[in-house]
Amino acid sequence: MLNILQLQIKVLSSKEQTLNYIEAYLKKFLHLQPDIVTLPEMFNCLYDNKSFPLYAEFEGDITYKFCQNLAKKYNIYLSAGSIPEKDAQNHLFNTAYVFDNNSNCIAKHRKMHLFDIDVKNGQRFKESDTLSAGNSITVFDTKWGKMGLCICYDFRFPELARLMVDLGAKIILVPAAFNMSTGPLHWELLFQSRAVDNQVFTIGTAPARNLNASYHSYGHSIIVSPWGKILNQADFEETALFTTINLNEISLVREQIPLLKHRRLDIYELTQK
Amino acid sequence: MLNILQLQIKVLSSKEQTLNYIEAYLKKFLHLQPDIVTLPEMFNCLYDNKSFPLYAEFEGDITYKFCQNLAKKYNIYLSAGSIPEKDAQNHLFNTAYVFDNNSNCIAKHRKMHLFDIDVKNGQRFKESDTLSAGNSITVFDTKWGKMGLCICYDFRFPELARLMVDLGAKIILVPAAFNMSTGPLHWELLFQSRAVDNQVFTIGTAPARNLNASYHSYGHSIIVSPWGKILNQADFEETALFTTINLNEISLVREQIPLLKHRRLDIYELTQK
Repeated sequence: MLNILQLQIKVLSSKEQTLNYIEAYLKKFLHLQPDIVTLPEMFNCLYDNKSFPLYAEFEGDITYKFCQNLAKKYNIYLSAGSIPEKDAQNHLFNTAYVFDNNSNCIAKHRKMHLFDIDVKNGQRFKESDTLSAGNSITVFDTKWGKMGLCICYDFRFPELARLMVDLGAKIILVPAAFNMSTGPLHWELLFQSRAVDNQVFTIGTAPARNLNASYHSYGHSIIVSPWGKILNQADFEETALFTTINLNEISLVREQIPLLKHRRLDIYELTQK
Repeated sequence: MLNILQLQIKVLSSKEQTLNYIEAYLKKFLHLQPDIVTLPEMFNCLYDNKSFPLYAEFEGDITYKFCQNLAKKYNIYLSAGSIPEKDAQNHLFNTAYVFDNNSNCIAKHRKMHLFDIDVKNGQRFKESDTLSAGNSITVFDTKWGKMGLCICYDFRFPELARLMVDLGAKIILVPAAFNMSTGPLHWELLFQSRAVDNQVFTIGTAPARNLNASYHSYGHSIIVSPWGKILNQADFEETALFTTINLNEISLVREQIPLLKHRRLDIYELTQK
């Protein structure tokens, strides 16, 4: 049995305040004995292109150290949502880290699908104006088995989830921040369909809606079973979701409908280049 | 604009009666001026392994001719659900045909993913005891653009839908017959998620539930827009769904969220072998 705690926190404009707030908020739920704690996409940064460079950090800087410390101090695995990361060439990435309970960084994923849209006389939002894309599929080992990690828009692409599962992922962690148009339409659907198609647990953690911010997050942090059942789901508001899952459910589902085995790999092939 | 008529008919034990019934039933809806009429999976045959060989026909036989005639007589394109087809070597297939309004066969798909399950002390059902699998991905031209065709369990595999879309399909037609366990859990989810991931229309046509048959179809024939919206859906009972769709919606959705363009084809690749 594995205890998952998802923190759907509100992101504040002061990074320092947000980090302090996360620790204080987490402490309220430690008596539940979570094994894994998850944070939202861009949890230390206001969600807009203008803010990303201002909040960005080099790897190993303030937020990274804060997360390492949090994981060790409270004996948890921490899926540290994502943060704006900068490299030596001043490229910016939307980067997710996972730390084990000894503060080791056991996974790093840079968002690999950037959301660019430019409709004539319509919406224009280009993440690629500010951010660079990662180029790696991220699957990592834990004492409970392998897990996959991707960020928000990455999860729109069935190829990526499938390849993570082919690499052994039993749980897919997705820090994300859908908006008020795409959230109601597609959020649940994506977490359920990736879970059902791949017979894994899917876990999406989003920031709480902040009506004072320019970007209104849909919230609705969610956890879905390999059978497609929504085990827990938040609303828009700040909240924590605590869910106990049983990874044996994966093999039970795969026995009942042996989807992965029934693929026609003699007819089609999905490969990582 | 394209008028779709889905016939969620009940399958009778007499093939001849079923065929006559389909024509009579269709005639009630001709005043709506359907462009395309769809029938369910195994529409001329009771749905069990025992019945498939008994109802099976060689290509061009009774049911095939009936469908050709229906299409020409009523000036419709007919997605003729699927039927048990036998070949010269006495192999059986679950085969879907599409006929144009001149009675030309413009598509043929043999179900390529067979549902085999054999759980210890549990359910045992092996389609492959009776049926052989097809080996082709089916996309065909119509005057409205390209369409994809697959059968029931085929639709569980995101690779197949994606490859049909890569081959140009704007609509995916799926004769199907989910059961009373998987239907409530996954039917809507699959039609919505394939539509959203691929930004196409998905159309599932199932037989009405027949409580006297050994297999209880979930029914719930469905049509979903590229935005993931359920445009029309049946219940368990015999009924017809009439829906007018606008294929321009596809390009509008693809402008708003350019999913297919945003795939990282430099990182992963899905190919037909």
